[in-house]
Amino acid sequence: MVEPVDAAAVLAALAEIAGTANVITGTDAAPYLTDWRKRFSGAALAVVRPASTEEVARVVRLAALHGLAVVPQGGNTGLCGGATPDAGRRNIVLSTSRLNRVRSVDALNNTMILEAGVPLARAQEAAREAGRLFPLSLAAEGSATIGGNLSTNAGGTQVLRYGNARDLCLGLEVVTAEGEIWSGLNALRKNNTGYDLRDLFIGAEGTLGVITAACVKLFPLPQSTGTAMVALRSVEDALALLDLAQHHAASTLTGFELFSDFCLSLVEKHFSDHRSPFAARHDWHVLIEISNHQAAEATSTLLEHLLERALASGLIEDAVIAHSGTQAAELWELREHISEAQAAEGKNIKHDISVPISRIAEFVRETDALVARRFPGVRMVTFGHLGDGNLHYNVSAPGFGAVQDDGSFIAMQPAVYETVHDQVHRFGGSISAEHGIGQLKREELLRYKSPVELTMMRAIKRALDPHNRMNPGKILG
Amino acid sequence: MVEPVDAAAVLAALAEIAGTANVITGTDAAPYLTDWRKRFSGAALAVVRPASTEEVARVVRLAALHGLAVVPQGGNTGLCGGATPDAGRRNIVLSTSRLNRVRSVDALNNTMILEAGVPLARAQEAAREAGRLFPLSLAAEGSATIGGNLSTNAGGTQVLRYGNARDLCLGLEVVTAEGEIWSGLNALRKNNTGYDLRDLFIGAEGTLGVITAACVKLFPLPQSTGTAMVALRSVEDALALLDLAQHHAASTLTGFELFSDFCLSLVEKHFSDHRSPFAARHDWHVLIEISNHQAAEATSTLLEHLLERALASGLIEDAVIAHSGTQAAELWELREHISEAQAAEGKNIKHDISVPISRIAEFVRETDALVARRFPGVRMVTFGHLGDGNLHYNVSAPGFGAVQDDGSFIAMQPAVYETVHDQVHRFGGSISAEHGIGQLKREELLRYKSPVELTMMRAIKRALDPHNRMNPGKILG
Repeated sequence: MVEPVDAAAVLAALAEIAGTANVITGTDAAPYLTDWRKRFSGAALAVVRPASTEEVARVVRLAALHGLAVVPQGGNTGLCGGATPDAGRRNIVLSTSRLNRVRSVDALNNTMILEAGVPLARAQEAAREAGRLFPLSLAAEGSATIGGNLSTNAGGTQVLRYGNARDLCLGLEVVTAEGEIWSGLNALRKNNTGYDLRDLFIGAEGTLGVITAACVKLFPLPQSTGTAMVALRSVEDALALLDLAQHHAASTLTGFELFSDFCLSLVEKHFSDHRSPFAARHDWHVLIEISNHQAAEATSTLLEHLLERALASGLIEDAVIAHSGTQAAELWELREHISEAQAAEGKNIKHDISVPISRIAEFVRETDALVARRFPGVRMVTFGHLGDGNLHYNVSAPGFGAVQDDGSFIAMQPAVYETVHDQVHRFGGSISAEHGIGQLKREELLRYKSPVELTMMRAIKRALDPHNRMNPGKILG
Repeated sequence: MVEPVDAAAVLAALAEIAGTANVITGTDAAPYLTDWRKRFSGAALAVVRPASTEEVARVVRLAALHGLAVVPQGGNTGLCGGATPDAGRRNIVLSTSRLNRVRSVDALNNTMILEAGVPLARAQEAAREAGRLFPLSLAAEGSATIGGNLSTNAGGTQVLRYGNARDLCLGLEVVTAEGEIWSGLNALRKNNTGYDLRDLFIGAEGTLGVITAACVKLFPLPQSTGTAMVALRSVEDALALLDLAQHHAASTLTGFELFSDFCLSLVEKHFSDHRSPFAARHDWHVLIEISNHQAAEATSTLLEHLLERALASGLIEDAVIAHSGTQAAELWELREHISEAQAAEGKNIKHDISVPISRIAEFVRETDALVARRFPGVRMVTFGHLGDGNLHYNVSAPGFGAVQDDGSFIAMQPAVYETVHDQVHRFGGSISAEHGIGQLKREELLRYKSPVELTMMRAIKRALDPHNRMNPGKILG
């Protein structure tokens, strides 16, 4: 039986904890109750914005007392509805926006301690101010927060060299489902003392506790960067080029982004000031980035030698090297405008998948054929982080604009998901490479995870949050 | 109440699973019942050597049926008694020695799948045969196995560049405490689909399940290596040199090992064919290694420029660069003989600690003074992986040989541990940087972990192994 909530008592207690101005209800709460893509919407008794870890702990204990759920929310930039409450009103949305201090930067230890609500761009800036690099980088970095990045184990454009959010984190501070504070903010490269709780909270999307702060790794700032774009015949050739680049440039290879000619043509169509740097059309393109500890001249030479070898062995059809920061930015913009160009072209169904790198070409060939057969007329918008085996293997509606408005394309979404995700599963891949599960892929998770794994995941959820108070309805439901 | 064990029935069932030749009892079982440093000894009903994951699962289910514990054991090279059974006879030691296949190597995906019993040296060899590097490297690599390396999250000499065993693992196959098989052998760089079970089993020392296979990362083979040894005045200067080297060489810096002059003098005393490369004595030494994707000439230049800058700024007193593989090996041998030289000198008390790199100098200065005051006459044998913040901060008995034989030194061990580990704790460090907890540091764990963390660790143990059948007496006890 569900007990009635004494709303007035809860609101008064929240105000006592965080201050009246930081307890948000009514229309002011609306932005917190819908995800930014407007796919998910929910309800909450209130949004609260605690300013300290102790305040977070008090909010969690208060929620427990009243049988309410806590929905942690950072910048609200997630793509799977993981930070949006469900439709019941038995939720408190816990916004981390006031947990926004850079607590410390230890340049000699190459670490910094950030509160959960620090926006990613601010974290990058704090590192730069100390002459260091914090490499996590993704499109939403102006709003996305460190807490959200860790809770979803964010990926982005630098994973090839520096890893996911998980790989960049040394220690955490967490408020548990019991409302206790775990101070696990260690700043150590090596620490083998018992079970790895840190990595359990990372990627748990707030369902096991609230991350309130993190100690993250810093790196030396690169001395120079080299950028090139190449044209290729096939995904197979792109994979052979990746192999060559990894042997040639090793850990200085920081970007290896694949996109099809259709992606490029969408960018050219919808952004008239962006043009392919090549005179002819080519089926595939790769953007290569090298970030070097050596001076610009050495970086240019490294990149030129790589491209010479690739041309000589017939792996690539053409290549351009950026000779200035502006030129490099122009090449990156071609890649970065794909998502917007695809949206401008009309409706699309997105996938965020990974497969073993060695099987990508086969995956694309087989799946393209299968999708074309089952869903005639759709267009594949294939791009992604090839160096990580991660493709945004998107399916665009047939035709353009008004033609698509009868709703028949979006009605196909479940069938398209199933076709693509079944293929991913068959290739030993992942149905969520970097965006998480949230509400969006909960059913998919049940479809593809083995019973043994689901049983263990449920046992862990019960062990750390026995009353299912932390972000219910996400991941396991 | 403990039920009596029907030993004959268990032995017959084990023989049915793994074959009579692979069920070991009596004196033949002795080597499995004592750790290699002969600090821990236990008993078991039998040692069983299953040859497949399915056989492992059957052994675990059999043990459950008879209320027996399962003690997984790899190469039996651990330093904390984590693979040695307790003194009761209600144990089955599960040796992974026949789970020794390299199942597959995928060069293009830069991964390979290894069974738990593959010795580390064999894993390195399999990678090399495919033109790749598997960077995990440690003294016991001839015997130590992949399963043990992962279960203890092994460190070693390449952590600075490539990370711990944890960082090198993409997927696991595990037999759970229920005797079920979790096939989590994914070969993906990105996979955000629910709780991170992989990292929970890594470092769990076999207390949550048995790792039977792993998918690990491979890297390009370096094209050249540069090695130098430098002489310095202080740990502070070594830290400043580390900072300079990281900015100068970035990810090509693969080794940065610190050792005191006393360490060097012990090696010279007990190994007459090893000599300091310097004419004068210096207080501290650092061994620097660069592993480069570029040719030998570029590597030499990089190393020379680094040392020129360090000399010019007065950070180092002297330096030698190895001009051949033989010279490099000679420098490394000075570092690698410290443990043996220290043993030849007499009794010693070992610590495997880490502290934030920025605080190491202060830690050493303070703790040296404290130890000297509390334990007059002892000698500090300070060396370790400075780039990881990991010191083997060992305490050697006063005098030499016979002088030490009255047992008074080893009687001091608990007090020395407490002095050093209290300091480590005060500096935000770890009492076990790379060796784990096992039986050796169980009490220490209880002393230094917070109640919140211990509560969560116990909840996870209960969730995944509710009957405490997996390696009891280790980590949490």
